Amino acid sequence: MKRSPGWSGSKGTPIAAVGEFGLIDRLHRIVEEETARLGVTTDSVSIGIGDDTAAIRPSPGFETLVTCDIQVDGRHFLREWITPHDLGARIGTINLSDIAAMGGIPRAAIVSLAIGPGAAVEDLEELYRGLTRRLGEHGATLIGGNVSGISEGLILDLTLLGEVEIGRAVRRSGVAPGQIVWATGMPGASAAGFALLQAGWTGGEDGDLDALISAYLHPVPRVAEGRRLGETGLARAMIDLSDGLVGDLRHLVERRPFGILLRAENLPIGEELRRAAIELGRSPQSFLLEASDDYELLFTTDPDAVDPVTELFAGPGRPPVQPIGEVVGDFAGEVVLEDVDGRIRPASPTGWDHFPSGG
Amino acid sequence: MKRSPGWSGSKGTPIAAVGEFGLIDRLHRIVEEETARLGVTTDSVSIGIGDDTAAIRPSPGFETLVTCDIQVDGRHFLREWITPHDLGARIGTINLSDIAAMGGIPRAAIVSLAIGPGAAVEDLEELYRGLTRRLGEHGATLIGGNVSGISEGLILDLTLLGEVEIGRAVRRSGVAPGQIVWATGMPGASAAGFALLQAGWTGGEDGDLDALISAYLHPVPRVAEGRRLGETGLARAMIDLSDGLVGDLRHLVERRPFGILLRAENLPIGEELRRAAIELGRSPQSFLLEASDDYELLFTTDPDAVDPVTELFAGPGRPPVQPIGEVVGDFAGEVVLEDVDGRIRPASPTGWDHFPSGG
Repeated sequence: MKRSPGWSGSKGTPIAAVGEFGLIDRLHRIVEEETARLGVTTDSVSIGIGDDTAAIRPSPGFETLVTCDIQVDGRHFLREWITPHDLGARIGTINLSDIAAMGGIPRAAIVSLAIGPGAAVEDLEELYRGLTRRLGEHGATLIGGNVSGISEGLILDLTLLGEVEIGRAVRRSGVAPGQIVWATGMPGASAAGFALLQAGWTGGEDGDLDALISAYLHPVPRVAEGRRLGETGLARAMIDLSDGLVGDLRHLVERRPFGILLRAENLPIGEELRRAAIELGRSPQSFLLEASDDYELLFTTDPDAVDPVTELFAGPGRPPVQPIGEVVGDFAGEVVLEDVDGRIRPASPTGWDHFPSGG
Repeated sequence: MKRSPGWSGSKGTPIAAVGEFGLIDRLHRIVEEETARLGVTTDSVSIGIGDDTAAIRPSPGFETLVTCDIQVDGRHFLREWITPHDLGARIGTINLSDIAAMGGIPRAAIVSLAIGPGAAVEDLEELYRGLTRRLGEHGATLIGGNVSGISEGLILDLTLLGEVEIGRAVRRSGVAPGQIVWATGMPGASAAGFALLQAGWTGGEDGDLDALISAYLHPVPRVAEGRRLGETGLARAMIDLSDGLVGDLRHLVERRPFGILLRAENLPIGEELRRAAIELGRSPQSFLLEASDDYELLFTTDPDAVDPVTELFAGPGRPPVQPIGEVVGDFAGEVVLEDVDGRIRPASPTGWDHFPSGG
């Protein structure tokens, strides 16, 4: 299956026709337009694009959060499968999701862009538009970066700064036995969407399956939810779901003397995943256990926090939230799954290892 | 000419043998060792490597500076010409130099690393060692990042955070007619060193030429000098020299109603550049006018600042500093060169355009 998702490529304006500084001007204009259009507050930006560094003013009493993610053509994305706009939005989501998982407020980003001959000026404008919009939807703005040419491909590395009240970041290390483990949204949806695309679905055939394909192509970060979970102190530990439900939960307990027990009956398996499982001849559970970058939040709370968490997620526009298991004193460093018949087994396969061993 | 500068490559430990998380552990250990060995203060780092984001605590009354730079194998560096240790140091220098040019204090960095099959675990450890040392020499520390696999090559993107008293960053926009233009060090040395390497020199043949080769292979950032120029208020505008003397000075005046007049007799052309020019059959001046990434500082001061600037750079371990011209009311947006016989001509060729037009 080949999609044709709107890269101008050789049909667009070659970058050499505008030059490095012409390109930077055009991208700068996109950032200004979109930031203004969305009404993003930029009071904290004291130096924007165009000096040796950018500068932002931290809010008094806050500390600065910083995260980055790189997307390399052919490895992290395929131009046949994603539009430039969606690629920009996606790298925004990946980084926003990390700030969300600390209970933080996204503020400002800088981007490194390395461009081979295959991208047109219009493609990069679309990419910047997607990125600036996604950042702007969550209150953040692009304040700088650099652009360089490479012999082929496209590399995009985004660094996002956020902030949180000093000492109030929700750490992974806050996890402890007795806590409830929660997941937002529909973990595994992205893995199912990707499997559907690979099997030849293109979207538009079926509402349920479309939702999964969209979860893969258009993931959204849970910024407001992460912030509320941090601000209220409800979340004791939090991580975002970028490697797969089990792989990410394992990060919470690795090298700790306790583990996580998931209950199969509580896993959030919706009608969509069941439909996809039938179409693809797989078990619905398999999508939750394998690698899947859903950009949902995984978090733990004290056992008495069920009502306030449920309340926090009530209301229109909020994702579903579900208690899926608990932190237990045994199974040190492991994530295990209790089946509906009470049998306990390791929850696997694992999440992504970018360099799997075994060779 | 091929150098063999110590990449283990296929003779080293393949990354798959240790896995993604094993690799991260080993790199993390390098950072801890080097940071401790250099005695770098990490009080401001509240969350280091290993959570969804890192976190640092801004100093009260300071704003946060942020810059990034990407280095792509085959484009920005060649493994035949640079050791992994020097590559790490180099990307440190590039970013430190940007913070220096704002008069700021470097604090903390995060790195995105994308690795093809051609690099061994030992290579990446050396790269991290070079990077952590260079950062540590200037008081900064590595606090996070991410690692991913790609089909070939090596990509390194570093984001560096620094800080400066609120409103005290030395901006490019501070430039105004009547100011003196200064350069530290020996601009063009890097271009000459690169030309020598291309012509078959390898270093070790001749002290003068070695100094130039070293300027290309081992550039050092002028962090202490930039900070002092900012702190004292002497520098009215500042930029680091990464594109070439003329290219970078042009960034100071582009779109402004004034220009910069350089005086040929004041250009800092030392014995080394003269020697290289003879060996290569070129004019010494040509190295100063073309692209050259020297990571020196270019800055302007009020006309009465000659004595304090000279004093600031006096003493052992300081680079030379030289008034090379002035900001003038005409030649809007341009950099011009007054020859020793009084003739004025455009100072060219230009600095780097990563996407030169004309095709």
